[in-house]
Amino acid sequence: MNRLQIIQANAFHSPKYGKIEFLENVLFCVDAKGVIQDIIHTDHPDYLQVLASAKEAGNLQTYPKGSYLLPGFIDLHVHAPQWPQAGVALDRPLYDWLNQCTFPLEAKYADLNFAREVYTDLVHQLLQRGTTTVLYFGSIHSDSCLELAKACIQQGQRGLVGKVVMDDPKQNPEYYRDSSTQEALAETERFILKMLELNQSAPQGVYPVVTPRFIPSCTDEALKGLGELAQKYDVHIQSHCSESDWEHEHVHTRFGKTDSQALHDFGLLGKKSVMAHCTFLGEDGAKLFAQTGTAIAHCPISNAYFGNSVLPTASLQKLGVDIGLGTDISGGFSPSLYDNLKQAVISSRMLEDGVDSTKPPEERGLADSRISIIEAFWHATTGGGKALSLPIGQFKKEFAFDAQVVQIDSQNKPYTMPDFGLFNSEEEILQKILYLATPQMIREVWVQGKKVYTNH
Amino acid sequence: MNRLQIIQANAFHSPKYGKIEFLENVLFCVDAKGVIQDIIHTDHPDYLQVLASAKEAGNLQTYPKGSYLLPGFIDLHVHAPQWPQAGVALDRPLYDWLNQCTFPLEAKYADLNFAREVYTDLVHQLLQRGTTTVLYFGSIHSDSCLELAKACIQQGQRGLVGKVVMDDPKQNPEYYRDSSTQEALAETERFILKMLELNQSAPQGVYPVVTPRFIPSCTDEALKGLGELAQKYDVHIQSHCSESDWEHEHVHTRFGKTDSQALHDFGLLGKKSVMAHCTFLGEDGAKLFAQTGTAIAHCPISNAYFGNSVLPTASLQKLGVDIGLGTDISGGFSPSLYDNLKQAVISSRMLEDGVDSTKPPEERGLADSRISIIEAFWHATTGGGKALSLPIGQFKKEFAFDAQVVQIDSQNKPYTMPDFGLFNSEEEILQKILYLATPQMIREVWVQGKKVYTNH
Repeated sequence: MNRLQIIQANAFHSPKYGKIEFLENVLFCVDAKGVIQDIIHTDHPDYLQVLASAKEAGNLQTYPKGSYLLPGFIDLHVHAPQWPQAGVALDRPLYDWLNQCTFPLEAKYADLNFAREVYTDLVHQLLQRGTTTVLYFGSIHSDSCLELAKACIQQGQRGLVGKVVMDDPKQNPEYYRDSSTQEALAETERFILKMLELNQSAPQGVYPVVTPRFIPSCTDEALKGLGELAQKYDVHIQSHCSESDWEHEHVHTRFGKTDSQALHDFGLLGKKSVMAHCTFLGEDGAKLFAQTGTAIAHCPISNAYFGNSVLPTASLQKLGVDIGLGTDISGGFSPSLYDNLKQAVISSRMLEDGVDSTKPPEERGLADSRISIIEAFWHATTGGGKALSLPIGQFKKEFAFDAQVVQIDSQNKPYTMPDFGLFNSEEEILQKILYLATPQMIREVWVQGKKVYTNH
Repeated sequence: MNRLQIIQANAFHSPKYGKIEFLENVLFCVDAKGVIQDIIHTDHPDYLQVLASAKEAGNLQTYPKGSYLLPGFIDLHVHAPQWPQAGVALDRPLYDWLNQCTFPLEAKYADLNFAREVYTDLVHQLLQRGTTTVLYFGSIHSDSCLELAKACIQQGQRGLVGKVVMDDPKQNPEYYRDSSTQEALAETERFILKMLELNQSAPQGVYPVVTPRFIPSCTDEALKGLGELAQKYDVHIQSHCSESDWEHEHVHTRFGKTDSQALHDFGLLGKKSVMAHCTFLGEDGAKLFAQTGTAIAHCPISNAYFGNSVLPTASLQKLGVDIGLGTDISGGFSPSLYDNLKQAVISSRMLEDGVDSTKPPEERGLADSRISIIEAFWHATTGGGKALSLPIGQFKKEFAFDAQVVQIDSQNKPYTMPDFGLFNSEEEILQKILYLATPQMIREVWVQGKKVYTNH
């Protein structure tokens, strides 16, 4: 037992969609690799003995009343270089936003020092908000993408990082694009190899991701080559898919088929693929995603600005599509998945009820579209783990011990939740955490069995 | 000059809809009544002298770099007794939510000790989030509503408080309704008189508000009597108006006219009237509101759960209707107007773009519906002041000095905003504050020239 850490705590997680499981005062037994070896419940015959020996050995972690563990959140879509512009310029049209703000900003990451400064802060900010795993878009610059992976290693976050490919000279500005298709593919391969090397020193995992920005910015040759690289190294793939009216139309005009079908034909869909937005995926696209095991990074805040519509989460879920949540920094302003959880629920209700009060109720919305906050919680945790095909997002044997410790108690704390001895069932406590927690209430964050952040 | 406090600071406000004004390093001269007597800009010939004498007299307040003053936010719709259930049960239909959770909870406020405990916490929580003025619904119990006013006085918040009237035995549960119409009106009048008395000891103002819950819960006689009381004492009026498909239909069936017209005919619309939600107000209702000076409390988070639609803010604004923002605790889960500001923008964009991706763009949304974050900021400040017909919400001579001090600087602070020397125009700084500030960044709150909250 000596090499195990024992963490005694109350915890919530959601192994099954729409359901929560409350683990009351359990003992998490975490091995030296940061993996949960066992979860011992209070009624287990060994409970007291394991507790006593951990106390004696000095490897017991306990928490005061009012503390709850949640699985670390999994953010499936972050444009790391866009962090400096989070919250600004969101009133501009997409084209201006990209060309006047985003692309000039991303071009700055040719500077490794700038990259290091921004990425160090971003990783910290995401950890502070309980996010333990992130699927990152970098910029086109492989070396600054490696800086992002190093920031993850240094701070203990699990990071999946992609060097962005955007090679089509007709679609991308000269100051910010891959210098050629060959170069884009060669740099991607070099990046993959460097990342596999870095991963050796990262117990929590840092993984390379094949990352065509989206079909409109890439040549056919690049897309084909990236599909082949992903297969060769068996690595993750990410891109944007069917995000807006414009993107949807663009791909249809170019290939005479949908975005999802085109991605599939380039070998870019599969169990390790995560596609952002997908608001215009449609039923055929959904079936293709379900068949291939491709997941959606649902970014509800960003979709309100650039997605032209709401992702029909409830119906996609029924079709068997894997769905997780993404902040989409900086198309989405917030670095917090809590904010996106809430917006996922709100947007789903607005899809169900409709938005235009001049229309009669039956024409206004789309019935049976709402999801609950507990379902959104599943997307931010279990769903994210499934999307990435990694053993994360749940408190479960053989899964990584990734957790955020939320303290809702009012004792000497500046930010508290309403209590008054009411609405304190297990599910209500979790609802209050998800709806009302402020960043300040996230007291600790653990990744792969290691405490990587504390704010007390 | 001796009796003046001098506050030297950078400040943002929005005297004109859609525009911001940045006051750089100005001197706010605030008199003993907490009113702004003057705002001295750096280029004014007296600037240095006023600064020097304030320093000498020891009545100068300064702030470190990275601090910005915003007007205190004005929350136009809070159900104070519902604070204990914020964030819970939002997945239930409105009828169950009211009858199983809300009404039983509100009935508990017959207990003054319980009222005192909850209201003390609620006022504190709202102040922590920069909210300096609140238009509160209480419960049916006059004495516990007076406890709410006392909590405001004790903590220095400006509170407008209504004893709720719901007298119709056919529409309200026996355990939670006014015992008779006469009693409802007599209690309202007693409450008004007590509040006018309490107001004597509250420099920031605590005001009585005539508060029929909404038309469906009141008899004709009560509505008429309340209109008369409001006129007799020249006090504020609040209620709900055209909130949902159900309410809209109910009133139409009962009176053969719209909710707004019915309220008007009972003498309940006017310059001091604020009506919550109004999602189904329609163009005729909007014109009536504009004519009478009646304001809308726009509650974008709550509307996503119970409003069945989005308030068409942009078009109502063009019709000249006064609009401010409300959290609608606990139909809205969040005690923060920051969250509602952001949702106001998001909801407006979803109204413009539509929500159902299976429809073509031209049928999906309603053109020209979006508002900007700067326009939403106006609603939370200047708009709220206009709605209440009080000199608040702007930094302006003869206005109350109500401010929140937001510190975005990274020096030794746990929560910071992205900077990196980019996107730092005045408007971009304000956008970042509005989109990214956490409660922790609100370092001080001032009401009527008095510092009523600090977190440092």
